[in-house]
Amino acid sequence: MIKVIKGGVCAAKGFTASGIHAGIRKNKTKKDLSLIYSATPAVAASVYTTNKVKGAPLTVTKAHIADGYARAIICNSGNANTCNANGVEIAEQTCEILANELGISASDVVVASTGVIGQPLDITPIASGIPALVAGLSADGSNDAAEGIMTTDTRKKEIAVSFTVGGVECKMGGIAKGSGMIHPNMATMLVFITTDCKISPKMLQKALSTDVENTFNMVSVDGDTSTNDMVTVLANGEAGNEEIVAEGEGFTAFMEALNALTVFLCKKIAGDGEGATKMIECRVRGAKDVATAKTVAKSVICSSLVKAAMFGSDANWGRVLCAIGYSGADTDVHKIDVSFRSQKGEVQVCAYGAGVDFSEELAKAVLLEEEILIDILLRDGEGESVAWGCDLTYDYVKINGDYRT
Amino acid sequence: MIKVIKGGVCAAKGFTASGIHAGIRKNKTKKDLSLIYSATPAVAASVYTTNKVKGAPLTVTKAHIADGYARAIICNSGNANTCNANGVEIAEQTCEILANELGISASDVVVASTGVIGQPLDITPIASGIPALVAGLSADGSNDAAEGIMTTDTRKKEIAVSFTVGGVECKMGGIAKGSGMIHPNMATMLVFITTDCKISPKMLQKALSTDVENTFNMVSVDGDTSTNDMVTVLANGEAGNEEIVAEGEGFTAFMEALNALTVFLCKKIAGDGEGATKMIECRVRGAKDVATAKTVAKSVICSSLVKAAMFGSDANWGRVLCAIGYSGADTDVHKIDVSFRSQKGEVQVCAYGAGVDFSEELAKAVLLEEEILIDILLRDGEGESVAWGCDLTYDYVKINGDYRT
Repeated sequence: MIKVIKGGVCAAKGFTASGIHAGIRKNKTKKDLSLIYSATPAVAASVYTTNKVKGAPLTVTKAHIADGYARAIICNSGNANTCNANGVEIAEQTCEILANELGISASDVVVASTGVIGQPLDITPIASGIPALVAGLSADGSNDAAEGIMTTDTRKKEIAVSFTVGGVECKMGGIAKGSGMIHPNMATMLVFITTDCKISPKMLQKALSTDVENTFNMVSVDGDTSTNDMVTVLANGEAGNEEIVAEGEGFTAFMEALNALTVFLCKKIAGDGEGATKMIECRVRGAKDVATAKTVAKSVICSSLVKAAMFGSDANWGRVLCAIGYSGADTDVHKIDVSFRSQKGEVQVCAYGAGVDFSEELAKAVLLEEEILIDILLRDGEGESVAWGCDLTYDYVKINGDYRT
Repeated sequence: MIKVIKGGVCAAKGFTASGIHAGIRKNKTKKDLSLIYSATPAVAASVYTTNKVKGAPLTVTKAHIADGYARAIICNSGNANTCNANGVEIAEQTCEILANELGISASDVVVASTGVIGQPLDITPIASGIPALVAGLSADGSNDAAEGIMTTDTRKKEIAVSFTVGGVECKMGGIAKGSGMIHPNMATMLVFITTDCKISPKMLQKALSTDVENTFNMVSVDGDTSTNDMVTVLANGEAGNEEIVAEGEGFTAFMEALNALTVFLCKKIAGDGEGATKMIECRVRGAKDVATAKTVAKSVICSSLVKAAMFGSDANWGRVLCAIGYSGADTDVHKIDVSFRSQKGEVQVCAYGAGVDFSEELAKAVLLEEEILIDILLRDGEGESVAWGCDLTYDYVKINGDYRT
């Protein structure tokens, strides 16, 4: 039984967090440095962007959690520390300064950065901010940490759940940064998850790697796979459950809790995509297999024309069929149904690949809502998938037309 | 020696054209039906969209030119005749009515449609418009035909060239429709080309199929591969040159003329992409092979973030590296240089994968121009490629947020 609870990344026992304005950004009202800390050693698992151009922090983090353990996550916004000659050096210095302040080993620090690519990251504000960051650690600090990792996000993305493993209550919480350059591929996104569930390094990595295939990898805001995407889970075992070391009931419960949490964050990331006014969910059913369903769902979510039509609340279903057609998936247009659904109701617009009469008035009402479901039936088999995205708006162009300067 | 000449698709001997408002569109000032006609039988070659959802006209055209010959091309705008139960029937009727009026065989008619997907196409305005369309055929009709195929295009796309085969002057002209849903893949775009050069069906198809790989397939406006893309060439042999039946000097001259014409149209299509204020050309040099160069060039041109930065005249080169990184191409970021160039000069922004000091003032001046070159050096080999696209603007969103209604 999964219950939504309060506390974000501090909901799980033994975790504290903080977030401050350290001066990496000019805007003094915007927090730009966040910390999540486990009072005891925690098992760590990560997935990373598949972009060949990778942020320096990812290289350092990968080395630090190679042993399967970590205790702290530090993340700055305002600068990606990517494509800089001294990037790895700066990321390592960040870990060392933080480790000294916390009295832990630098190799137990996970480091992440998000922001502009290709501008050298100055260590000065980070170094001078770390004492306050550590001093600010608190069981109420998840909000601040969630704020500190935001870039063009307009809303914090934070969630926590409780679940039961072998009769023992465990907790899990997560924060995420989304908005732009969001098109995870085989990994990824900037998400930090904490849990007090006891689980082995191998099973934690397995849980994370399996889950992202159906969650973060099915989100797209703008088709651009970031250089700095990363999802990290810390599990410190403080809940006291019997350690999860293999598949079975406990692992299933863990996977369900993880999935509830990541789907929540996926929707938040999609709905708060840069400039977005609407969250678009695309559900594909009846595909010949899951891979086909995923290909179709992702293609529809990524189509600029579908996204612009959703912005305009225009039931232009031909663009949905067009996106299915160029997805590369094996489908037969003459068997495809398409419906739009929201709180305001459902309207079928296409049956067996051709238009059906529908009420334009109802369609408009359905599409004016903030959460839209595009439901696609392929009639080829049992494969299903869901993908999340957002509409394409004037504000996306505005935000990205002049982001750097 | 290739020379640009006047006359568009009527420049080549024996071709006439016309364009009228037939009433497919409500806007009476917008032509919506175009015709290109060869007084004598012409060799025909076509390439088609790879979208699995294909417009009905493509199916009919494919059957009609299976014998390698055609004499007329009819194209309507305002309706794609795609995803309609009676689409093939309507396309065939269109050919029959036109063939009767012209006194030719229906199987010598190439038919194309462009516009909204999934709305039944009424034969009535086409049937009643065809007599005027045929009566209007003229050697000055290329302009009208170019207008009749426009959708959200803001500018006509028309060109003609002369070239020499075996001492005989030949002419070739073309018109194109571009703007949105432009992301050709292994084929395609709505382009009609005429030539009086004598060339065998096999060599004409070979010339076209080879050329599009480096021209129309390297254009993207919005990443959406249309259901109705098609390029058709009619060659009626009226120039009187010795027939091109194999590779050699004549075929090379033909290919050069064809390439000059298609590159011109590619740039026009890219620069007049929906909402575009700028044409973006991406040139990749030093790739390990041509395929890698193409992958990189296409990825940069397609990046929403690069496109938005170009709109904002923002030299945000990190996004260029990001797009190279997720392209899937085998590259080494530490060897990559990036420069921006236009009429106003050139500014190098990245060397060996890291930023270089550059004048923001010069960069702004360079990027404020209407034609921008993004020049990428990979230092991995000799592979080169060029791709064409445009910026992402408020108007793209505006045009596509409410296109159908």
